[in-house]
Amino acid sequence: MFESAELGHRIDKTTYDTEVPRLREALLDAQFELAQQAKFPVIILIGGVDGAGKGETVNLLNEWMDPRHIEAHAMGEPSDEERERPRMWRFWRALPPKGKIGIFFGSWYTQPIVQHVLGNIKTSQLNQSIDRINRFEKMLTDEGALILKFWFHLSKDVQKKRLKTLEKDPKTRWRVTDTDWERFKLYDKFRKVSEHALRETSTAEAPWLVVEGTDFRYRSLTVGKILLDAIRKRLDSPAKAAPLKVAPLQAPIDQLDVLDVLNMSQKLSKKLYEAELEKYQGKLNLLTRDPKFCKMSVIALFEGSDAGGKGGAIRRITAALDARYYRIIPVAAPTEEERAQPYLWRFWRHIPRTGRVTIFDRSWYGRVLVERVEKFCSEADWMRAYSEINDFEEQLVDNNTVLVKFWLAITKEEQLRRFQEREKIGFKRFKITEEDWRNREKWDDYEHAVCDMVDRTSTEIAPWTLVEANDKYFARIKILKTLCQRIEAAMKQK
Amino acid sequence: MFESAELGHRIDKTTYDTEVPRLREALLDAQFELAQQAKFPVIILIGGVDGAGKGETVNLLNEWMDPRHIEAHAMGEPSDEERERPRMWRFWRALPPKGKIGIFFGSWYTQPIVQHVLGNIKTSQLNQSIDRINRFEKMLTDEGALILKFWFHLSKDVQKKRLKTLEKDPKTRWRVTDTDWERFKLYDKFRKVSEHALRETSTAEAPWLVVEGTDFRYRSLTVGKILLDAIRKRLDSPAKAAPLKVAPLQAPIDQLDVLDVLNMSQKLSKKLYEAELEKYQGKLNLLTRDPKFCKMSVIALFEGSDAGGKGGAIRRITAALDARYYRIIPVAAPTEEERAQPYLWRFWRHIPRTGRVTIFDRSWYGRVLVERVEKFCSEADWMRAYSEINDFEEQLVDNNTVLVKFWLAITKEEQLRRFQEREKIGFKRFKITEEDWRNREKWDDYEHAVCDMVDRTSTEIAPWTLVEANDKYFARIKILKTLCQRIEAAMKQK
Repeated sequence: MFESAELGHRIDKTTYDTEVPRLREALLDAQFELAQQAKFPVIILIGGVDGAGKGETVNLLNEWMDPRHIEAHAMGEPSDEERERPRMWRFWRALPPKGKIGIFFGSWYTQPIVQHVLGNIKTSQLNQSIDRINRFEKMLTDEGALILKFWFHLSKDVQKKRLKTLEKDPKTRWRVTDTDWERFKLYDKFRKVSEHALRETSTAEAPWLVVEGTDFRYRSLTVGKILLDAIRKRLDSPAKAAPLKVAPLQAPIDQLDVLDVLNMSQKLSKKLYEAELEKYQGKLNLLTRDPKFCKMSVIALFEGSDAGGKGGAIRRITAALDARYYRIIPVAAPTEEERAQPYLWRFWRHIPRTGRVTIFDRSWYGRVLVERVEKFCSEADWMRAYSEINDFEEQLVDNNTVLVKFWLAITKEEQLRRFQEREKIGFKRFKITEEDWRNREKWDDYEHAVCDMVDRTSTEIAPWTLVEANDKYFARIKILKTLCQRIEAAMKQK
Repeated sequence: MFESAELGHRIDKTTYDTEVPRLREALLDAQFELAQQAKFPVIILIGGVDGAGKGETVNLLNEWMDPRHIEAHAMGEPSDEERERPRMWRFWRALPPKGKIGIFFGSWYTQPIVQHVLGNIKTSQLNQSIDRINRFEKMLTDEGALILKFWFHLSKDVQKKRLKTLEKDPKTRWRVTDTDWERFKLYDKFRKVSEHALRETSTAEAPWLVVEGTDFRYRSLTVGKILLDAIRKRLDSPAKAAPLKVAPLQAPIDQLDVLDVLNMSQKLSKKLYEAELEKYQGKLNLLTRDPKFCKMSVIALFEGSDAGGKGGAIRRITAALDARYYRIIPVAAPTEEERAQPYLWRFWRHIPRTGRVTIFDRSWYGRVLVERVEKFCSEADWMRAYSEINDFEEQLVDNNTVLVKFWLAITKEEQLRRFQEREKIGFKRFKITEEDWRNREKWDDYEHAVCDMVDRTSTEIAPWTLVEANDKYFARIKILKTLCQRIEAAMKQK
């Protein structure tokens, strides 16, 4: 992959001086249109060999374009707030919104490549990281992002010369650190691993662009032209290249589905409920005060039919928790800042630190439930959401998050009863709206969506718990009990 | 102040059981209206003696109301991201948006009171903190926030008994730490200092509400009723109590003002400009790479007439910086999330960590410039902004931020020339809009606002630099030079 980048590409000064002014003007124009349209973000990754001009290129891009619409991120040591969350959290929080350019100096590639070169992770782990990166970048491009991945290359001899030259000049000496020389000793290994990673992640949507880093005029002009060309193309043909082809999901051919087999007549007496409530609330309280809990976190999410009893169930959980360490995120329409980001961004921003509990009242599953049924997004969008969600949840679980997902199921008759009751009772009247009645008409569509959701996202690491919720007492105890069991099981694995 | 809270207040079970259901329903109703209107946030501070029921009260409020619209914050040890910013940053980032309730367990009072009791800060420093708190809370209430400050009190004997009781029961033993007993030894001093702090911060807008903590029914009912009453009152009389009385600023009685005395004919030849540019960009680059720079940060803000040359000046600064460590914040209309917060919130969120440079292209001064002139806010709002801004900047400077403020002044004739030029040149055409022409008609109003701004916010710690910008070369060098001088001066103080 690096052969073309070792040929000694050079651009002479005259050509450079003629081309740059035109290029800059065109880049500024493109950038202005990008900001005006605000339809997609541009994500630029800068990777490669030390001394190959990575930093200079970032600075040059800022100089050539309007730096007010560029956000450059140096991904050095993570902060403590970052370390307590999944590895990708720091990248999610730094993603540029639509209309902006984000430059990542050091990206999601750095850690896996460097760790493998240093022998800290095995090939299988590297490959797993690569696989995840591909899925992540696929998600970004599906969401409309334009991704440009530049890899700055130097041959071994040239790198050595370059580091020595920098070291000789008192003005640039500071730029060569011991780490650079340490890394240079590993040049061959670094090259091999990088090539592997680049090959495996050079996809049609986000190919790697290897640039020879020796000559500053060559590399600058190359990067500038590629960038201009890519932004221009996307601006001029805003429609997504080809509509995603979606294979049909299994259509049900009988009446048997995961909801039908629930025994909806399960009940609990008030007396038993009160005893069990005390028992499991006490248990939950103890669990969250266990010293081991400081190393983990809990995310509980609630989906369910309207009037399924989510709010009441959530309150029975929070009553057992210390209000200082939990947060409830009621999920409603996304804000303007959230709409400028990929779909999952608004959930990533609420991922808890360790030792905390976050409860989502409705969640990222809105995509495959209400958004699917009400056609708020395209079929392709909700179809790809299943695997995006699975990827997301895998990262949470890898980060010691106990993820517990509840679907509160009630029968159509029970819903009617509750709607009518709500309309009668004063302080519950705000809980019933026109929309609830409208949704009810689509009962079967929702049921179908729920079954697909369970089939596709109930995984070993993050299973769905279907809760028979016609009886509130039964439902609440099942929820508390499940939550306790899941936390306990996770603690035992420590 | 604590006398009434040592009388042994008690509420019997019957009264409590009768009152609570009604109270809860009314609280839920009020909370629902609060969320629907989304016109003001409710900020609840919970302070007081250990063992007086602070934690229980936070939990109870979450139980009584809809916890989905409450955000409780335990302000323990700050994270590294928090430690690198002004002390109040962590509170700003946790402020509830309009329509929500934010509960602070441990607030901006904790640190000054505890540090003074422990003998780490002097009375004068405590008083300075108190003064700042008053100004901060005044700002919050002026912005419409409803602030409720609860102080839970126990007499010395009762606290001792309470801690012992908690310690005896194996279920509650964990709640009594060594720190609690250490603190108990300092009861008298703690009481004295708290009383002083409470007295000095019990204002008409945000009085302290001292609650006897002995009897849980008494303290719960008291807090619930006060909260209901306060929210209800604000919902029912949404108009601000009395319109702020605004004293007139000095009207100019001659033609001499800070802008008039500028020598606008100052120029620099291209040759001299290029030499100076190289010199000061080199110097700036060296300064930001100085090891001392890791302990400080820089905020440079640019205001100026339209077409004053802000963008060009900013680019000459950033060209000298490493793109990974600076950020430019172009200030435009606030987003939806920003509009739900106090005015300064959207600037606080961009305060840099140490070792970083943040450049604001337009800034918080919009309030006393465009918003004043165009009447986007009330006279009272921009009048109070002067001191709010001074308070804000004082906190930045206290946190080792070098704050450099530039006003780029051009003459009316020069502006006309630049506007006309922009309309002609292709890639500059987007820089000139109808609005620019409209603003130009209010030239005198803007000039007046600028002079008031300089008079009121050019302080010893954060002076304004007025830049004669008719000649771009002269302006850019003056800016670079000033920036270098200010950073150098700050470094020498280390």
